[in-house]
Amino acid sequence: MSRYDIAIIGTGPAGLEAAITAKVRNKNIILFGNADLSSKVAKAHSIQNYLGLPDIPGAQLAEAYKRHLDAMGIEITEDKINAVYAMGDFFALQGAQNVMYEAETVILATGVVAGKPLPGEEELLGRGVSYCATCDAALYRGKSAVVIGYGKGEEAEAEFLAELADKVYYVPVYKKDDALPEELKNGIEIVKGVPQGVERTEAGVKLAMDGGELVTDGVFILREAVAPGQLVPGLATEGPHIVVNRKMETNLPGCFACGDITGTPYQYIKSAGEGNVAALSAAAFLDEKKR
Amino acid sequence: MSRYDIAIIGTGPAGLEAAITAKVRNKNIILFGNADLSSKVAKAHSIQNYLGLPDIPGAQLAEAYKRHLDAMGIEITEDKINAVYAMGDFFALQGAQNVMYEAETVILATGVVAGKPLPGEEELLGRGVSYCATCDAALYRGKSAVVIGYGKGEEAEAEFLAELADKVYYVPVYKKDDALPEELKNGIEIVKGVPQGVERTEAGVKLAMDGGELVTDGVFILREAVAPGQLVPGLATEGPHIVVNRKMETNLPGCFACGDITGTPYQYIKSAGEGNVAALSAAAFLDEKKR
Repeated sequence: MSRYDIAIIGTGPAGLEAAITAKVRNKNIILFGNADLSSKVAKAHSIQNYLGLPDIPGAQLAEAYKRHLDAMGIEITEDKINAVYAMGDFFALQGAQNVMYEAETVILATGVVAGKPLPGEEELLGRGVSYCATCDAALYRGKSAVVIGYGKGEEAEAEFLAELADKVYYVPVYKKDDALPEELKNGIEIVKGVPQGVERTEAGVKLAMDGGELVTDGVFILREAVAPGQLVPGLATEGPHIVVNRKMETNLPGCFACGDITGTPYQYIKSAGEGNVAALSAAAFLDEKKR
Repeated sequence: MSRYDIAIIGTGPAGLEAAITAKVRNKNIILFGNADLSSKVAKAHSIQNYLGLPDIPGAQLAEAYKRHLDAMGIEITEDKINAVYAMGDFFALQGAQNVMYEAETVILATGVVAGKPLPGEEELLGRGVSYCATCDAALYRGKSAVVIGYGKGEEAEAEFLAELADKVYYVPVYKKDDALPEELKNGIEIVKGVPQGVERTEAGVKLAMDGGELVTDGVFILREAVAPGQLVPGLATEGPHIVVNRKMETNLPGCFACGDITGTPYQYIKSAGEGNVAALSAAAFLDEKKR
């Protein structure tokens, strides 16, 4: 397996700026995210304060970003990173369907997780609630589970889980523009409804829905962004944010963060500026390591 | 005198982004700097990593900045701020020729001072060396002084000093594209040459030049940017940089800083991102004050 200099997770302004700056510094990078970049940017009505691009509609800004990536020959790897492990001398990144990547340094630019957790979700995390089907599927061999999917990409995760589990229910909670699935592989039962909360009962883990309930051995809650402390074990966080210093260093040597995930204000130019700093700090870390 | 919400000093990417963000937040601002913006930006060959504007020549980036200011109706006040005083509830800003301004908050975006100090300069600061003719002119009534001007704008400062001092020598140390003065008002003697160092002697303060020396009561060294600790008494600095936290707050409440002046990396997008944060922190400070 080739080991990258820098793995960058996220294709919002922070991740993209980190990628182009790392490329300018001639580093061997891999950039994970959606090929159509951050949906937040593209859907923004109009941005007033991105210096140099006055009054620009979000869709145009996203286009400008794409042109920049193309001009520099940067490609996006469309895989969802579910976990990042600090291995001492390098980082191991776990993609969907257990694909593994290795990198000397990691830049986290995953944005903030929108929406509140479900009632009971945080209390049961690791005790019946999981955020990663790929990671925990093996624990559900011969058991039952519910997968709550917040995006179409989670359907494949549910199918992977169902290869091992006896019974999988799938609850699609999609944004308007994603079509609900009609059927899924591996005997998955699709259940429509809005999740209300989770609790542990004598019979198992109960997911309350607006139209009833499901009791299984566990509930997988798969949102677009994974909470940072969940994504990188051992990472210092403060509420929904990663703790960084002015060099964008986290508490883990070689692991940097930038953009909304590091805290407010949630602004494109702030995110881009931090991406620049994170990439240069990662480059300095690599240079130091080679001495 | 009208009191501004936010006074922004500097028209590089940090100051400009601070200005447009403050304007978006509907604050009453005054922006100090050169109307042709940062000469550093305009003279940059080509910038690769300003996300959204791939491979852009510095002159084009400066044009894009100007269009942004024009689109938002932001004007630049071409005055050089020589000192900023924290008055408790507001800040007093001293411009050239003693013009005074007042603001509730200040954003310092003055860039880094290029070049090394002259030998002896730092030792004699306040004891025969001064950075501000406007501030110290009164001390030179009936005395003699040398003014070393690093830009054409300093000629007016020398003339102001010569209104009070008995004898003023003026040493122009200009960049190639600035024409040397042929004569100046108020009996100033123009001396050509390259300053080598300053020292205190029995006869007075001696400025060594490559072609001789000048002994007077004091030497004024007027560079384009004033060192931050000199500009704002009481400001916490570290070497040539202002100490800030992630909110771009300095140690003085209501005083923020952004861009190169806060430290490396010296990058346009990093500066712009920090300008955004500084403006929003200043806006939050103002909102808090009004409660």
